This record gives sequence, C-alpha cells and structure tokens, in this order.
Amino acid sequence: MTPAFLIQKKRDGGALTTVEITELVAQYLAGTFTDYQMSAMLMAMFLRGLSDAETTALMEAMLHSGKVLTLPSVAGPKIDKHSTGGVGDKVSICLAPIVAACGVYVPMVSGRGLGHTGGTVDKLQSIPGFRTDLDEATFERIVRETGACLIGQTAEIAPADKRIYALRDVTGTVDSIPLIVASILSKKLAEGIDGLVLDVKVGRGAFMKEKRNAKKLAEALVRVGARAGKKVIALLTAMDAPLGQCVGNALEIREAIDVVCGRGPADVVECTLALGREMLLLGKVAKTPREADAKLTAAIADGRAARTMERIIAAQGGDARVVTDTSLLPAAPLKTDVFSPRRGFVTAIDALEIGLSAVAMGAGRAHADDKIDPAVGIELLAKPRDAVQRGQPLARLHWHRASPEIEARVARAFDVGSRRPPKRRLVIERITPSSRASRPPRRR
Amino acid sequence: MTPAFLIQKKRDGGALTTVEITELVAQYLAGTFTDYQMSAMLMAMFLRGLSDAETTALMEAMLHSGKVLTLPSVAGPKIDKHSTGGVGDKVSICLAPIVAACGVYVPMVSGRGLGHTGGTVDKLQSIPGFRTDLDEATFERIVRETGACLIGQTAEIAPADKRIYALRDVTGTVDSIPLIVASILSKKLAEGIDGLVLDVKVGRGAFMKEKRNAKKLAEALVRVGARAGKKVIALLTAMDAPLGQCVGNALEIREAIDVVCGRGPADVVECTLALGREMLLLGKVAKTPREADAKLTAAIADGRAARTMERIIAAQGGDARVVTDTSLLPAAPLKTDVFSPRRGFVTAIDALEIGLSAVAMGAGRAHADDKIDPAVGIELLAKPRDAVQRGQPLARLHWHRASPEIEARVARAFDVGSRRPPKRRLVIERITPSSRASRPPRRR
Repeated sequence: MTPAFLIQKKRDGGALTTVEITELVAQYLAGTFTDYQMSAMLMAMFLRGLSDAETTALMEAMLHSGKVLTLPSVAGPKIDKHSTGGVGDKVSICLAPIVAACGVYVPMVSGRGLGHTGGTVDKLQSIPGFRTDLDEATFERIVRETGACLIGQTAEIAPADKRIYALRDVTGTVDSIPLIVASILSKKLAEGIDGLVLDVKVGRGAFMKEKRNAKKLAEALVRVGARAGKKVIALLTAMDAPLGQCVGNALEIREAIDVVCGRGPADVVECTLALGREMLLLGKVAKTPREADAKLTAAIADGRAARTMERIIAAQGGDARVVTDTSLLPAAPLKTDVFSPRRGFVTAIDALEIGLSAVAMGAGRAHADDKIDPAVGIELLAKPRDAVQRGQPLARLHWHRASPEIEARVARAFDVGSRRPPKRRLVIERITPSSRASRPPRRR
Repeated sequence: MTPAFLIQKKRDGGALTTVEITELVAQYLAGTFTDYQMSAMLMAMFLRGLSDAETTALMEAMLHSGKVLTLPSVAGPKIDKHSTGGVGDKVSICLAPIVAACGVYVPMVSGRGLGHTGGTVDKLQSIPGFRTDLDEATFERIVRETGACLIGQTAEIAPADKRIYALRDVTGTVDSIPLIVASILSKKLAEGIDGLVLDVKVGRGAFMKEKRNAKKLAEALVRVGARAGKKVIALLTAMDAPLGQCVGNALEIREAIDVVCGRGPADVVECTLALGREMLLLGKVAKTPREADAKLTAAIADGRAARTMERIIAAQGGDARVVTDTSLLPAAPLKTDVFSPRRGFVTAIDALEIGLSAVAMGAGRAHADDKIDPAVGIELLAKPRDAVQRGQPLARLHWHRASPEIEARVARAFDVGSRRPPKRRLVIERITPSSRASRPPRRR
C-alpha cells in the first residue's frame, strides 16, 4: 500500500477502506506519507468526495491520533455544542452555564478565532484571569464540580487533524464537506461526550453562504456522528446579520452575561434556548421540548444559571464578579457612533463586513499569530426591521483611536430602506439522524 | 495572486491565465509555491484538466525555466523524434543516422529507462566508450559535423519540468494528458529544433493501453506543438508485442546497427522508415512520401547511413568499429532458451511481461538509482504470426545466471494458438495539425 497507490485510488474515484485510511493517517504522522502526498490526496478527496464510511474512518483515525477523554468521574449526561462560526456568536458562553444549571455536563473544547468570525477562547480570555489552557485532570474536575468547563484545543487532542487542517488551509482544500465533518467531529468526540448539538450557520456571515450547502454539511455531521456511535443533531441557523448587538471580545462576554441573567437580546436568547433545548433532550434531563424550555427558563429566572457561570469562571481562574459587574471587563476609551443617512427601516446588516471591520479594529486575527485587543468591538444600536430616523446612531465603535475608513465601512454594512422587511426565521431547520430534515418546533 | 487562490481557481474548474501559470512556475522554483501546494495544484489539474492554452503556457514556463538551445551554427533543417516509450524500441538509435545521412540534422536529447521500457541513453551507453553527457557546445558541434548527436537530459534543460515530474511520480499525477504533453514538449523544444515527429505507442507494452487515450495524447501534442510555433506530427504505432527481436541494451544496439545496415527485422525497419519519412518531409529534404522513402532506402543501401552512424559514435567517444563488428558489444556468458509447449502459431507476445522480465534480469531499473547491466536481455526467436513446433525455441535469455522464475515468466508471455492471427498494422494512425487524424499512407 504505497502512498502513490492510495492517492491514485482516490483520484480515480475509488473508495478507500477503513484500513487504508487508518494506515494513511498513521503514515502521515510517521512521515512516510509526506506533506506533498497528503495535499495531493486532500485535493483528490476534495474533488472526488468521500463516502460516509470514508469520512467516518478519516474522523476516527484523526480522533485516535491523540488523547480521547472519557471523564470517568463525571456521573451524568455529557453533551457539548459546536457552532460552525458566525459574527457575534457568543452562544457557547451563555449556553454552557444555563445547560449545566439544568443538570447536563458540558465539557467544551473550543477554537480560537480566525478570519472574520471570533473565537470562544479569545472571548473568554477577556475575562480578567480566565484560563483556557487547563490540563486534562483539571478540566475533568471543573466539569464535575461546576457542570461545565470551557478550554482551548490542546496539543494532545487530534494532532493529525491539526496538521491536516494547517495543510488544507494553504492548499485550497478547506471547503470540502467530508473534510470539514471529519475535522469537527475528530476534535469534538475527543472530549468524552455522549452527544453533540451542532449549530450550522448559514448566510453572508457564515462559512456556508448557501442553505443547500449548510444543510448538506449538517446532514453529513449528523450521519457521521451516528456512525461513530454518538447522538448528534444539528440546527441550521441564520447568519446574515450578526447575532445579538455586540461584536468584539469583552463586549460579547457582557452580552453573554446579559443572556444568563435574563436580559439578553432576543435573537441571542432564541438561539441559546433552541440549542439548550436540544442538549437537555439529548442528555435526557427533559423528556419533551416543552419541559426542556421550562427548565432552561427557570434556571435563568431564579439565578441558578448566573451562579453556575460564576462558579465556572472562578474555577477557571477568572474574576467571577464580572457576572454582577460587567464594568470589570476591559473597555476601550473611545466610542464613536455611526449614523443612519436616512429615515426608514434597517433591512440588512452585512455580518461579513461587520466581522471584517471588527478584525480590522483588532478584535480578531488576520494571521494566526496576530494579537487580539479584548476591549475593542462594534455595538449594533439598530438591528434588522428596526425603524430609524435620519441621523440616529446605527452602531457604536469601541476603540482606542478612530479610523474614518472603518467608520465608513461599518456604515456601508447597514442597509436602510423605506419598507420594513418581513420577519425571518432564526432557526431554519432541524436535522436529526432519523428525520433527515424537519422544521424546528415553534417556540412556546 | 496567492498560491491558495490559484489552486482554488483550478480546483473549481477555472482556466488559469498565461501570467498566472508563468508566475506559478516561477514561484515554485523560487520556493514560495511549495511542493505541497504544487502537488495539490497538479491533482487539481489532473482532475479538472487543462485547456490547450493552459498546457502551452505550462510547457513554455517549464521550457524557459532552463536553457533553450538554438544551434545557430547548424545550417539546415533540425528535426527530432520522440517516442512515448515501448519495449524493444531502439528506433531513435537507427533513425538518427539514417535521417542525418539524408540531410536532416537530428539534435536528440533522450531520457533514461524507468519502469518496463528501456531508455535510449542506457542503450547507447552499452557501446564501449560512448558518452551521452556532453556539453552544449560539443553537442552543437557534433550535430553540425556528423548530422546528429544523441545525449542525455542535462540539469540545464527544463529544470522546472524535472522537479514537477519527480513530484508527479510520487503523488499519483503522472497519467494526465496535458501534464504529459507539457513535460515532453518542454524538454524537446529546448533542443533548438524546427520540427518534431512523435511516436505515440499504444497497447500492452505502452503507457497508453487504449487507442482512444493514445490518440488524445497525440492530438494534444500536435496541437500544443503548433501553438508553440513548431511543426509537430505524430504517428500512433502498435506496442502490444515488443518491437523487433531484441530487448536489452547491447542487444538492441546490435539490432539498431542491423537496421542501419539494411538487415533489420521487418517491424523495426517499418517503424524507422515511417518516422524517417515524416522527418524528411518536415525538414523539407523530400517533397513527397515517395521521395522520402527513396532517399531513406538509398542511404541504407549505399552505406551512407552506416558511415554516419560510425561518425556519430566516434564523435561521442564510442568505439565505431561496433557498426561492422557487433561482437565488440558487451555480451552475457550464458544463453538459455525458452521453448514452445505446443505446435501452432504465436498469437501474442506480452510486451509488458517481456519488459518487466528484462528489468528483472538487470536490463532496466526498478528504482531510479539501480545500475544497469548492458549485456543482459531477451532475444525473441519467434514473433506473432510465426508458425512454431512443439519444443522449438521461442526466446533466448542472455544473462549471467539462470533464473527458472524468469524463464517461466518469459514463457508465459508467449501465446501459442492453433490459428494464425490476422496481420495487424504497425502504424495505426497519423496525426497532423491540419487533419486531426488521417490514415497513414501505405508503404510503397
């Protein structure tokens, strides 16, 4: 089984066996299957596709290239959530404590931001003292004691995925559904979870711009997750405008705290509750969607979610007082407002442009080794469907030094029209292993 | 124009511009387009294809990555011939002196053998003293003074092709028609030729097993050659059985000398004259095929071809006496015959199996750094359509030590049936820039 033989087999549209894929990943890590051979293989996989069996084999090979946690001391359902990434998506940060307060354990390993979307780890690090680089034993202890722990990827988790992802990034082989599926699940299934809820974003500000592709990705994630013996379900959610009112690290932490304390913006709350409902159902702490919603709402209303959040922050070395006093979060000295050029209704806010503007302000990374400024960001003072007057502020830029160029860019991201646009669903579709696609239940 | 952008463009089926392809090759040589990026690009090119314009741009970029000869002191038509490789294909070695004796200059740069086919350079090196590693000035002088010079590839000729070919070899991207076309022509057009005659082999012993693919390759070579401003024509010739009676380096030199001296086997003679005819026509030293044939036949009959061969061998440092005394060539001490198991007719001889057997005997290379034994080889004592008796020798193995395994393998390569098979054309089709495909003229 030489490398060239395996490459040719895939190149000619053949299906690689599980043994071949396992061997390929092992040889790649050992250096006998070289980078240039792997990149040819990845391009062949990109263009020829992978069956679910091949995708599962690749995922398992990458998963088992590193440490696979089991969290034996955590006695209860262990369910995580993963988002494919969007602008203003701080849901993990409010969702974990709310769900943990309802009795589901959330062992969450998250990535850093790259490109126009922010990363959960970067956001968390804007909480003074908060550490995301914890070892396995500490991770397990915090999950057990507080109900959740949110850390960054470690060198031990799926090292084959890490190398293959870096190679894909520079060889034009990122946007392949089977390769994305294998990459996501190889990292998530290393967390020792029983089930996984996926938030597959679709629209301008998402990696998948088209619903068709987002749905394909969600379906493949659910199918391959099931093949690997895990309970996986996915929601397709809209990512045309940014989620919530804040984009930027400390600003998003503040907004996540608002959600946990029951005063979050409607769309972030809706997204959080929709995903939380699925986690409670997967974790069997609720039997029906109605029961799940009731539990989540109660945990927010009676303060258990906020207390859980404090406990998680404290356990991870952070200043838990931020939950009751968000002024302890880093703040930028200068605020600049961007105004509506006319009277009317906000018809659209381009999430991609807002995301890229935030990166340009220092809230994200253009390159992997860029440093992030936790304080800067963009507050959206009007959201789609809002009526606005001429000269009314649309957005507030938090920064150290004004840039007319970025102000203009943020202004251009807003569309103000004369007619109020129709309401659009946030949760577009629910993908489960049994019903390949079903409409999401209406919120009660 | 980042590497990933170019890869994605080709990956998605886009056409790369000449500027993009030129840049890509330049960046590859400079190291900013890495091996792993090039291998992803090559796989994308393999699966998405290249237009003639793209193939021409790639060919030109590889051609101009090195020295492009012009041979200014050679006053006359300069025409080369290239074969895609077959078993027993010694035609270059007899063709060059015959054509040179007719007034066409033949500056020929050839490759070494790899895989089941032998290389012209390896065969020539079995002539005592013969050197194929001559510098440019010597090459030009010998072409000018003798009419032909046959050397091996140098480091200065198309270095980009050399690196890309080595990468293709280990990344499953060899069998792509546009990549093959660009590779062949980038080397051949560096020789300073006016025109090129291609022998595209088809059948069991060729790289192209199917006529359909061989024809596509021939057509692409002719089209891209024309785009580059060169007169290029191609013959499709049969390579099911080995060409001639000898396979192995010194044995093939002996057979090439036989052809030059007018006593060669019918099929090698036919192939040589068919290609020579095209070279004389391209070189305009004959106006009609009939005139070309007459000139070639005369040069053989009156000894001018043999004298030219002697002059070429002598100029390249070889012992020219081999032309009149082939016993000066290396010979193996042991000869072992393989016998027909039954009475009947030879219906087929598997050229691939004969080629691989010869490699196993030491006549070729399994790996690029294997050493070649010039003396060993296989003589075919019966050819397809020959009547044979039970126990009659079919082949004679020339070697140092017998191997029953190889004997059995050579015996298995022969098919002996009860009926005489029909005669098959050696020259299957003639591909010119104007008539994309035309029947070859019948021999006169």
